[in-house]
Amino acid sequence: MRILVTGADGFLGRAMVRRLADLDGATVVATDRAFSTPAPADGVEQRSGDLSDASFLAELTQTAFDWVFHLASMPGSLAERDPEAGRRVNLLVPIALAEALARARSAIRPRLVFASSIAVYGDLGEAVVTPSTPTTPTLSYGAHKLMTEFFLSDLHRRGDLSAVSLRLPGLVARPLEESGHGSAFMSRLIRHAAAGASYDCPVGPDAVCWWMSRETAANALLHAAQGAFAATVVQPPALRLTTAEVAEAAAALGGSPLKVSWGSDAALTRLFGALPPLDASAAIDLGFPRDADAAALVRAALRD
Amino acid sequence: MRILVTGADGFLGRAMVRRLADLDGATVVATDRAFSTPAPADGVEQRSGDLSDASFLAELTQTAFDWVFHLASMPGSLAERDPEAGRRVNLLVPIALAEALARARSAIRPRLVFASSIAVYGDLGEAVVTPSTPTTPTLSYGAHKLMTEFFLSDLHRRGDLSAVSLRLPGLVARPLEESGHGSAFMSRLIRHAAAGASYDCPVGPDAVCWWMSRETAANALLHAAQGAFAATVVQPPALRLTTAEVAEAAAALGGSPLKVSWGSDAALTRLFGALPPLDASAAIDLGFPRDADAAALVRAALRD
Repeated sequence: MRILVTGADGFLGRAMVRRLADLDGATVVATDRAFSTPAPADGVEQRSGDLSDASFLAELTQTAFDWVFHLASMPGSLAERDPEAGRRVNLLVPIALAEALARARSAIRPRLVFASSIAVYGDLGEAVVTPSTPTTPTLSYGAHKLMTEFFLSDLHRRGDLSAVSLRLPGLVARPLEESGHGSAFMSRLIRHAAAGASYDCPVGPDAVCWWMSRETAANALLHAAQGAFAATVVQPPALRLTTAEVAEAAAALGGSPLKVSWGSDAALTRLFGALPPLDASAAIDLGFPRDADAAALVRAALRD
Repeated sequence: MRILVTGADGFLGRAMVRRLADLDGATVVATDRAFSTPAPADGVEQRSGDLSDASFLAELTQTAFDWVFHLASMPGSLAERDPEAGRRVNLLVPIALAEALARARSAIRPRLVFASSIAVYGDLGEAVVTPSTPTTPTLSYGAHKLMTEFFLSDLHRRGDLSAVSLRLPGLVARPLEESGHGSAFMSRLIRHAAAGASYDCPVGPDAVCWWMSRETAANALLHAAQGAFAATVVQPPALRLTTAEVAEAAAALGGSPLKVSWGSDAALTRLFGALPPLDASAAIDLGFPRDADAAALVRAALRD
């Protein structure tokens, strides 16, 4: 079984590669522009290169893959500042990768699992989010993720490949040194609160976010690869909690008093801290995993 | 005032160029892979070339345009048979054109009017179509039109250009020799009925289609270029009539008895002949033109 992971040196990619390396008989090809750590296991082959380089992409896809996890992506706030790079990484690369996989297929019809984002929704009102919630992205990042979803669903319909897109929320807990994600405060809050360190949170204690640990995200992507279901777009279950609830769970885990001062950043609150309830029963029925509660979330979030 | 029309040798493009050539002080650059007829007026400059050729596109867009009408497109049934060409023409070309226009802007923020399609909806049920009707395209053509809508709306949001996409229905009456459009039967029906010629219509007399004359479509595109409205996606008013109603109006116009034998093609009926009511009040409020009734439709459809 041959598996490709793009963005393999990223926060989610590193966990995904480790998760896949545990599978029996898996050969994992991990690709990214560069690697900050050596391959975590014998069955993992690291390939450095730029997916927007046509010759690298052609070489990478000349041998067939059973599963492909396309995680490579430019974070939303970075993409807003560098729109040409954002279009290249978040739109043209997934199109080119999917085309290359569709062309390369022989006996194997590859299963492509795409890390989409809740940014496809744009400004959500107060109504419960369901599979029929309209998608009106307000950032290029979300527009390009949504375009990729439609592109992959069409290739799936044609039978050129088997595709599924997962709309991931902000994942926790990213390392403190990572930047470019507007949702970075969610990770910083958990890490600081668990360490008993003081933190100036840019949003208020009653900001309502959707939370998912990296571990659950990796398990959800794996489940999507294994799953034989008809849906080509899935909203996996995220945990809807306030910043205060998560901060308190992290402080309790660390055994330290909470030293957070709360802010009121309107833009961040609108994008990440005013999320309505989520009806993820469709994904739950398909067996997608979830973080059980705030305590389980922060425990998983702080695991390496 | 400089205006670019792509797909300018196509059915809609030829009418659009003639319509624009009537405007005072307009310089119209008409582009297509080749031209079947000479320029219709002095202010029209024909440029033959392939928009998917990066150097042709760069040369074409090196001088700024006030308005751009992107009509170049590969019909849906052709694109299903040649998916790589379909992706190139219907997805990668509009992305590259919009990027080139966004980069080239100087004092002028160009207004890009995109000929989208009702194919973005996919299978419509029986509910009235409104601006909040979900889009679940069932053909690559519709998926790529929809992706382009999202791409352009995002460039508009960023201020890189001013964009509006019009979801056009099957236009009538195309010349009998044109092929590749699944909706070609709508044009053939009108032309044969008006000529008093016999015609084997592939769908039944009670097939309910959305109709728009080429003349109204050209006027709608012009209105979209002139309009200063916030919407970046518009469903212009189409006329919802049965094939029998339109055939009878065409026969009455021609003064001939109707000689149509009706078929029952399930795929064509599903795609074009089972359309629900359309609430186009948003577009009507914005001043978009429409064909008044069956008699006006066939009169306009048969004008050169």
